[in-house]
Amino acid sequence: MSHRFEITERVQFSETDMAGIVHFSNFYRYMERAEHGFFRSLGLSVIDPAHHGHERVGWPRVHASCEFFLPLFFEDEVRIELLVEEVRSKVIRYLFRFWRMDSELAAEGRVTAACVRKDPTTGKMKAVSIPDRIRHKVEAAPASLLAAVRPKGPPNNSLR
Amino acid sequence: MSHRFEITERVQFSETDMAGIVHFSNFYRYMERAEHGFFRSLGLSVIDPAHHGHERVGWPRVHASCEFFLPLFFEDEVRIELLVEEVRSKVIRYLFRFWRMDSELAAEGRVTAACVRKDPTTGKMKAVSIPDRIRHKVEAAPASLLAAVRPKGPPNNSLR
Amino acid sequence: MSHRFEITERVQFSETDMAGIVHFSNFYRYMERAEHGFFRSLGLSVIDPAHHGHERVGWPRVHASCEFFLPLFFEDEVRIELLVEEVRSKVIRYLFRFWRMDSELAAEGRVTAACVRKDPTTGKMKAVSIPDRIRHKVEAAPASLLAAVRPKGPPNNSLR
Amino acid sequence: MSHRFEITERVQFSETDMAGIVHFSNFYRYMERAEHGFFRSLGLSVIDPAHHGHERVGWPRVHASCEFFLPLFFEDEVRIELLVEEVRSKVIRYLFRFWRMDSELAAEGRVTAACVRKDPTTGKMKAVSIPDRIRHKVEAAPASLLAAVRPKGPPNNSLR
Repeated sequence: MSHRFEITERVQFSETDMAGIVHFSNFYRYMERAEHGFFRSLGLSVIDPAHHGHERVGWPRVHASCEFFLPLFFEDEVRIELLVEEVRSKVIRYLFRFWRMDSELAAEGRVTAACVRKDPTTGKMKAVSIPDRIRHKVEAAPASLLAAVRPKGPPNNSLR
Repeated sequence: MSHRFEITERVQFSETDMAGIVHFSNFYRYMERAEHGFFRSLGLSVIDPAHHGHERVGWPRVHASCEFFLPLFFEDEVRIELLVEEVRSKVIRYLFRFWRMDSELAAEGRVTAACVRKDPTTGKMKAVSIPDRIRHKVEAAPASLLAAVRPKGPPNNSLR
Repeated sequence: MSHRFEITERVQFSETDMAGIVHFSNFYRYMERAEHGFFRSLGLSVIDPAHHGHERVGWPRVHASCEFFLPLFFEDEVRIELLVEEVRSKVIRYLFRFWRMDSELAAEGRVTAACVRKDPTTGKMKAVSIPDRIRHKVEAAPASLLAAVRPKGPPNNSLR
Repeated sequence: MSHRFEITERVQFSETDMAGIVHFSNFYRYMERAEHGFFRSLGLSVIDPAHHGHERVGWPRVHASCEFFLPLFFEDEVRIELLVEEVRSKVIRYLFRFWRMDSELAAEGRVTAACVRKDPTTGKMKAVSIPDRIRHKVEAAPASLLAAVRPKGPPNNSLR
């Protein structure tokens, strides 16, 4: 059972914008990168292989959000920490923390991924219970890890 | 004073992913595209020109979120509706609705953009009051427009 | 029969990089955007519909190149002109010109798209002759249109 | 003096398109990623620091091209090999090879990056001689490394 994973990425030039910082849309790509790495670390893939006698499931996002505290710059090394916030019957909720210089909280994001299967009749995606072969590997992180982290710097909450 | 704007975009091939639908990170780019079009419609630019005797401000995001209801496909025409949800002293909060086929609510997003100015001493960005020349052009949309819209299809709230 | 098409796009913030100009990878996205618009203008789609009793073809790129003459900036209006440079039995070669302010040649690109069909035995893509239903709609542009255009400014050829 | 560098990247979900393969525009981003890694490996940065008493130079692309031989798929590990093809007074020309499974040549690309400095009078970028502090670290690869590599599979040259 796992509830935590992390990757370290270096900010690429193509991820910056004319403000000289990482464009906010790329934070969502970083989160997904960590999520998919988490699955691989469990011997899984978000692209469920079509064999082993089980039906394939997919993981579309139903919600994604991010709070931005500090900008990320070109060539910064960023540690992206994934924590499983909740496992429900049909969804997994993830929390992501972006650490710059290993100590400054640059951003905090959340993604809710739904477990879906293609309905053979309609061809549409339908939320289904997470298969046991996945469920047995993922658990919510302890409350101590999920507890709010205080970003450094002056209180800025009036801006959220 | 304006509180509403919309653009219509056609989904491009490079915006899709291997699931055959628009990658979720692109919804945030669509929102920004609408936001910047809104500014242009008011005779403004998010890249504040450095003249007219005023100090330049910028608009970094401090929060962005999106709820995904329906996938968007290649060559779909999507209407992105921007509504000003709130104008505070230092931030503007936007609500975005993604309409597919002009009637189906595919997604609903929110962005909070802070008005910042570069501190001449530290060189860092600092939240400042929205200048009157901008403030006088933007107002919150009426509650009737901001009221929750029910996406079509079976209730899916347990997945958010 | 058609050999020319054009679209006008406004440069988006997310397409810029920290150098303050459009990141070069986005020129290839603009070219594809024009190519797909060209197909739509002919009543076609690069995503070949699976009906009408014909077999579906796809158009992967086998070559793409671009010469960059002038930078493109945020909110610039750019006219992308597509010219069919050559139609061969299995490929179409396109030439693209990026016009800034409608008169300055900012870049010139080329794409070779191969007509492919999935081999039912191997499941792999295989180059095939362009079907008549498409071939009959596309022709090479006249030499006068394809003739080299001199970008403004000092000769810079030693840099290519 | 260095003439070769390589990085290994795993294909990310957001880099794929609805054809199920890496979108061609991302090959250019991979090339740049390798180029910037090469600079870092030499103790340099493409974002030239503004100190040490020297004038800052930048490296815009004046040409970029790519030949695509084989598709890259989600979660593929790709080795991107950079070779310095030529060092001229004002430009560096790079050759990139994309190796899938460490043995299959998936693509071959080229980038010509010009050394530029901002003209203090006009504010425009101007090509300048590569400073010695950079020039002394970069050399062309030997002809044996630059010699053409035969991609596997049936000859496909008629498609280029």
